[in-house]
Amino acid sequence: MSKRSNIVVQKYGGTSVDDAEKIKRVASQIIEKKKSGKSVVVVVSAPGDTTDNLISMAAGISPDPEIREMDMLLATGEQQGIALVAMAIHEQGYKAISFTGHQVGIITDSVHSRARIKSINTKKIKKELTQDNIVIVAGFQGISPEENITTLGRGGSDLSAVALAAVLDAHVCEIYTNVGGVYSTNPSIVPGAVKIEKISYDEMLELASAGAKVLQSRSVEIAKKNNVRIDIKSSYIDEQKNSGTIIMKEIKDLEQVEVRGVTLDKNQIRMSIVGVPDRPGIAAKIFGELAEENINVDMIIQSSAHETGINDISFTVNREMLKRAVEICGRIKDELKARDIITDKDVAKISIIGVGMRSHAGVAAGMFKLLSDNNINIEMISTSEIKISCVINSKKGKAAVKILHKEFCE
Amino acid sequence: MSKRSNIVVQKYGGTSVDDAEKIKRVASQIIEKKKSGKSVVVVVSAPGDTTDNLISMAAGISPDPEIREMDMLLATGEQQGIALVAMAIHEQGYKAISFTGHQVGIITDSVHSRARIKSINTKKIKKELTQDNIVIVAGFQGISPEENITTLGRGGSDLSAVALAAVLDAHVCEIYTNVGGVYSTNPSIVPGAVKIEKISYDEMLELASAGAKVLQSRSVEIAKKNNVRIDIKSSYIDEQKNSGTIIMKEIKDLEQVEVRGVTLDKNQIRMSIVGVPDRPGIAAKIFGELAEENINVDMIIQSSAHETGINDISFTVNREMLKRAVEICGRIKDELKARDIITDKDVAKISIIGVGMRSHAGVAAGMFKLLSDNNINIEMISTSEIKISCVINSKKGKAAVKILHKEFCE
Repeated sequence: MSKRSNIVVQKYGGTSVDDAEKIKRVASQIIEKKKSGKSVVVVVSAPGDTTDNLISMAAGISPDPEIREMDMLLATGEQQGIALVAMAIHEQGYKAISFTGHQVGIITDSVHSRARIKSINTKKIKKELTQDNIVIVAGFQGISPEENITTLGRGGSDLSAVALAAVLDAHVCEIYTNVGGVYSTNPSIVPGAVKIEKISYDEMLELASAGAKVLQSRSVEIAKKNNVRIDIKSSYIDEQKNSGTIIMKEIKDLEQVEVRGVTLDKNQIRMSIVGVPDRPGIAAKIFGELAEENINVDMIIQSSAHETGINDISFTVNREMLKRAVEICGRIKDELKARDIITDKDVAKISIIGVGMRSHAGVAAGMFKLLSDNNINIEMISTSEIKISCVINSKKGKAAVKILHKEFCE
Repeated sequence: MSKRSNIVVQKYGGTSVDDAEKIKRVASQIIEKKKSGKSVVVVVSAPGDTTDNLISMAAGISPDPEIREMDMLLATGEQQGIALVAMAIHEQGYKAISFTGHQVGIITDSVHSRARIKSINTKKIKKELTQDNIVIVAGFQGISPEENITTLGRGGSDLSAVALAAVLDAHVCEIYTNVGGVYSTNPSIVPGAVKIEKISYDEMLELASAGAKVLQSRSVEIAKKNNVRIDIKSSYIDEQKNSGTIIMKEIKDLEQVEVRGVTLDKNQIRMSIVGVPDRPGIAAKIFGELAEENINVDMIIQSSAHETGINDISFTVNREMLKRAVEICGRIKDELKARDIITDKDVAKISIIGVGMRSHAGVAAGMFKLLSDNNINIEMISTSEIKISCVINSKKGKAAVKILHKEFCE
């Protein structure tokens, strides 16, 4: 930590800035940080319902709005947020200056609605910081090499914050949310869920990909790659008492529990291509074509053949990809002369995550036995060094989370 | 006209794009123009109440919001407008691309909230036009040399449109409004007001500065300087029947009427510095100091002295300048040891305008007699080659307009 700069990056989400009172409160909090001697860079999202309102305006014009223009439209939400926060800081007697993604040189690729950050020019920000300004940057947006406004997709403002923290070599990236931290499982399912004090990048990555919504995987990836410490904090608690979750490199002081958290992901569906000839290269063909169409496949099982020379191939994809996945698999089925395609929407993925699993054999076996003892049938399994996921019937999802949390986290 | 390019610039105000239906209608109209074989550049304002809503959001944060951040905030309104119009054009199967002031290179000076356009880079627009795109540009906004977002002040989108028409050497600049043209006087005062078919730049300048609100003086000045033909049209009438007002160079086919229009301006106040020593340089001092503070003075009268060596100096300024003008005049009064300052808020300026006055002596005399015959006292007079203005009691304003319009325009 000691080699890092004096810069702190803070990120405030839309619910933190959705009316004048909240904006003033955020401004005070930013000023407190500044007064503590830090150089402060703040990333702000679109206030409250702004983005939803813009989306419904566009929907009134077109059922499928042109994607470049959609980015042009949506980017205004964050621009409003930064202007209002900067005004509130001025009003309290401190210097602040706001910048759009374009102005501050957040260069992305040209993929509208889910662009990736390619580079950030830190010159302007650093100049303003040396002039004692608090720098307010619009989250979620950037500019393509062709100078079109782009947006970064879901969780985009977190991404902006982490990427800025990385290029500015920031001391810490503080992400203010209404949940106030990362929990051992979803508190709305298990009231006894506990806030995790410290968690490693790898565990957080697995949690995010397994369905925890507090932070998107891409943000965690960038943090890990650049060793950016992330503090997830609450927007509503005074700074002194505001202990949330620290996401950091796996180091000694990470408490060595076996299982850090339990997640439930109901956004998956299971697809099966039934009666596929058992020839080399079939799996490569199926998943190659899905990947080409940008359909991310999560779990894959190739079942043992019922008949000689015939396989069933099952996999899970995100629910919103259903329509396109069915189209592509239909084409593949015809080509391969497979028997059928079966889609199962009533599935849920439950996962347990923790670095401690590496050194503790038997965690997986314990999980399977526990589910079996409770009459929960496991349809698919996948494992990594620090995660075990099972696909089960979605009706049993919440019960499974409660059982696993009780066993491993309480 | 024949040497001009094939480009048409159209401008749509906020009321033309304040819901999905209107935006679709505007898109159809733009497409009609494109189908007629023109290259079309469209300037769009912020939809409906957007700007007012943004202003009240800012007011919730600060009674006097920082001016750079205010421009950052307000510029989002036009950005929403252009995205929505471009989407609507796409939806109808035509190619369109929207640009912010920043993207299209509308460079202004650095005076936030009332910046002046310094230059426009036409490269990007011309490239998109050759690729058969309809180009949609955000009105009202630009970017300063320091890359701060600026706004152009009242009537700013008209200014963007006329300036674009000038640099693109456009065939015509069509300004769509809800009034649909320039009238011989305010139709809400005189129901018999007639739409003016053609009017010269000079007459339009005088009309605008005398209080007609359809187009700001700065836009007319730029049009005159660059010989841009402006068509003021209605947003609500089908193109074929849509004959509004053409603003152009004074040429033969401008009908030679004496008086083109009558205006009433209730936004002026009269100030008098009473008992000023009659020394050389006094007027220069007073109006020099007011000009330095950016207070535009309209009419000036130095009255004949009641006593030897003592003058009264009266002038009119815009109502919103009252507070600052009183401060400055108070200072001057003390310095000059003048007797008093008198402010009269109950004044109105009525004006008659027309190029025909040049060659018709006696129009001024006729106006003065008419007012006198109707017991309307004239407090101040100013004249130009094509305009005569009188300051009268504001209670008599509407009556004076009716009398003058009846005499000169019906």
